[in-house]
Amino acid sequence: MKAPVDFYFDFSSPYGYLASWFIDDIAARHGREVNWRPILLGPVFQHSGNSPLVNQPLKGAYVVRDFPRTARYLKVPFVMPTPFPIATVPAARAFYWLHDREPAQAKALARSLFVRFYGEGRDISAADVVIELAGSVGADTAALAAALGDPAVKERLKREVDAAIAKGVCGSPYFIVDGEPFWGSDRLGQVEDWLRTGGW
Amino acid sequence: MKAPVDFYFDFSSPYGYLASWFIDDIAARHGREVNWRPILLGPVFQHSGNSPLVNQPLKGAYVVRDFPRTARYLKVPFVMPTPFPIATVPAARAFYWLHDREPAQAKALARSLFVRFYGEGRDISAADVVIELAGSVGADTAALAAALGDPAVKERLKREVDAAIAKGVCGSPYFIVDGEPFWGSDRLGQVEDWLRTGGW
Repeated sequence: MKAPVDFYFDFSSPYGYLASWFIDDIAARHGREVNWRPILLGPVFQHSGNSPLVNQPLKGAYVVRDFPRTARYLKVPFVMPTPFPIATVPAARAFYWLHDREPAQAKALARSLFVRFYGEGRDISAADVVIELAGSVGADTAALAAALGDPAVKERLKREVDAAIAKGVCGSPYFIVDGEPFWGSDRLGQVEDWLRTGGW
Repeated sequence: MKAPVDFYFDFSSPYGYLASWFIDDIAARHGREVNWRPILLGPVFQHSGNSPLVNQPLKGAYVVRDFPRTARYLKVPFVMPTPFPIATVPAARAFYWLHDREPAQAKALARSLFVRFYGEGRDISAADVVIELAGSVGADTAALAAALGDPAVKERLKREVDAAIAKGVCGSPYFIVDGEPFWGSDRLGQVEDWLRTGGW
């Protein structure tokens, strides 16, 4: 089995959500698995001097038009959520806690979080929402509720975010294929071609 | 004849250069012409609070890898120019001066400027380089040299940039198709689909 594809994203990222619909199938067509790696764009933006797209003059107006249009183009359900953007610390902590116990459940939780937020337009920032969705994919909700305040669980996410920044992750989604970085859902075509050809 | 496609770009923009290879053919396949509209990203960034990608931590390292890789993916010649980014005021002023006299020569000049800068990696910021290239596409070089300092010619470009910002242009390339905006060379697929279908 060749090395998995790394898929970095923030649960609050519309383009991360769009990519989440395709990356596993793209990788599977080329005999690869995908490591889903939720991160926090807040620390990334602190590092790079950026801010959320929707808060920027000109770009903000553009992207709120581009998000749903690109979703329709890709035939992916999309509801612009309110509030937006949101804090995704509980979601990301829960993901890694579950990943360290039941990786398949963690990926299922990530999909549930994305569907709740962008498929239904409902807030996923609160811990109780994350815990409820984790329960619906088989997690021990009492253990997860206790874990979300655990310093070791907080540190686990912080390490992931720091490691992502150290690898150059500058936005969401961001893919690494055999050391080659690709930023943006627009790069899925290149990701697939890189997997197919081994690079160019 | 249906309305032309508006194609906004800065001569210093790598993704604008990449798009310049494709947009006319895409439009022509759907019975459209293309209005090439060089702008200046400086005033756009002042308005939006952005800065050139290459100057940003994380993103800068990514894009200098993405520029040539995406060019290879698209089978477009690309040399990373030095210096970069550059001032493109003379290039853009010359474009509009020529456009108001011989539109076909203006588009030919734009292609020559892009090929000189990104095909050969040679600086195009100086007025004398712009004037030389304009001469090679048939322009009156003495008249152009005099025009580049003309307040009316300066004002012509300023009006174009202000009008672009007023229309929401937030980067380069930026396309408007029947009122619908598309930002980025990654959106050429959507531009073509919009032209084909009339929107979705």
